[in-house]
Amino acid sequence: MTNKKEIIASIIIIGNEVLSGRTKDLNTSTLSIWLNSIGISVQEVRVIPDIERKIIDTVNSLRTKFDYVFTTGGIGPTHDDITAESISKVFNSKYDFHDEAFSILEKYYEPGEFNEGRQKMAKMPTIAKLILNPSSGAPGFYVENVFCLPGVPSILKSMLGGLNNVLVGGDPILSRTINLKTYESEIAKPLTNVQNNNKDVEIGSYPFFRQGKLGVSIVLRCVDKVKIDNCNSQILEFIKEKNIEIIEID
Amino acid sequence: MTNKKEIIASIIIIGNEVLSGRTKDLNTSTLSIWLNSIGISVQEVRVIPDIERKIIDTVNSLRTKFDYVFTTGGIGPTHDDITAESISKVFNSKYDFHDEAFSILEKYYEPGEFNEGRQKMAKMPTIAKLILNPSSGAPGFYVENVFCLPGVPSILKSMLGGLNNVLVGGDPILSRTINLKTYESEIAKPLTNVQNNNKDVEIGSYPFFRQGKLGVSIVLRCVDKVKIDNCNSQILEFIKEKNIEIIEID
Repeated sequence: MTNKKEIIASIIIIGNEVLSGRTKDLNTSTLSIWLNSIGISVQEVRVIPDIERKIIDTVNSLRTKFDYVFTTGGIGPTHDDITAESISKVFNSKYDFHDEAFSILEKYYEPGEFNEGRQKMAKMPTIAKLILNPSSGAPGFYVENVFCLPGVPSILKSMLGGLNNVLVGGDPILSRTINLKTYESEIAKPLTNVQNNNKDVEIGSYPFFRQGKLGVSIVLRCVDKVKIDNCNSQILEFIKEKNIEIIEID
Repeated sequence: MTNKKEIIASIIIIGNEVLSGRTKDLNTSTLSIWLNSIGISVQEVRVIPDIERKIIDTVNSLRTKFDYVFTTGGIGPTHDDITAESISKVFNSKYDFHDEAFSILEKYYEPGEFNEGRQKMAKMPTIAKLILNPSSGAPGFYVENVFCLPGVPSILKSMLGGLNNVLVGGDPILSRTINLKTYESEIAKPLTNVQNNNKDVEIGSYPFFRQGKLGVSIVLRCVDKVKIDNCNSQILEFIKEKNIEIIEID
């Protein structure tokens, strides 16, 4: 990689609904793609249940290992939303109404509509800073390097822009995908050679079945465009030799 | 819960393609739903990169805490497929051609087609037992309580049937979903009461936006149908009182 320190992150998906299989996690993909674009690399994801002890232990184990930790889920108004209270315990901060959050929500709702359930969404570690929510009022928050976002994918997505000036990333991580009409076993050997000659480029190989067609995606990832280009050329060379059909390069 | 010991599992998704956001993980959902149906509850998922040390450490940390550990990904023919070799190191087993796997693959391919890349898929811990693959030949495998499956969702799915007689589950985990046209904040308080009166039923509340409609899914999960029915009745009671529209119960 470059000499610049790599900025690394982990994501904690808090939610029984993902563990039960009822809900497919879309937030990892949204967060990872966006974080890559600002030079932050996601290196681990954990999906854990709505259990306070588990949340506290997982956050504590990851916040010292990663530059940033993102949690999703568990910040709504119901009994199973326990992220904010758990994070308060992680940082030994009081769990109570956050003045700024309370004021935002009070303005967001019509008079008389800011009921007890909604007020719960203003309760969080009192030392937290807010992550504004342009979709539905209730803010996320962060304490030190732990950022707490909601679980609903469209709302989470709408809140990322607000983090642009808070997170400090490195060089954006670039990628290129070469889709081929071939089998992995056909390209395994020359691809290993290319990987050995291009240690700074992460090369992944993924078989796919799309509309009945079998193929392989080769994915190159690196912060340095020149290195990706070089690697790309070396791959195109053996592909040509082997007479393999290119579906697309993206 | 029941007096019967709960059987718990964790899933390790091995793959840079999920961490980069390029691929959305579908295997957790497939595996969790199927495991629930045979009475095994998934309590943690980790997504980790294709790094040997990371795979070994993660498997070692989870295999002692859970009855079963499932890995997905990294058992193909290319350089980034390092799951089988990593698992060999976890169990101090020789990583070499597995006689039975070699023989299956040799028969699967046409004469002359069983090349070096494909032969790699017969390399695994020699003490492993196989998980047959009706879709594409290359078997998965397991050692003790660690089960290694492929990353391609359709292939993984086709291999689960072969595990039916190997895994020992408890009572199937039943669930019921009540979809309502309401806000979470509207039902937060009575739902908390129902949860407090029904400790054995896991009650989740999930807001959704579907085709422009806002709603809440209440999900009840328990091994005991009678307990789900009771809990369901108590929820329907407060829903009626509050005059909330039911979209569907499933």
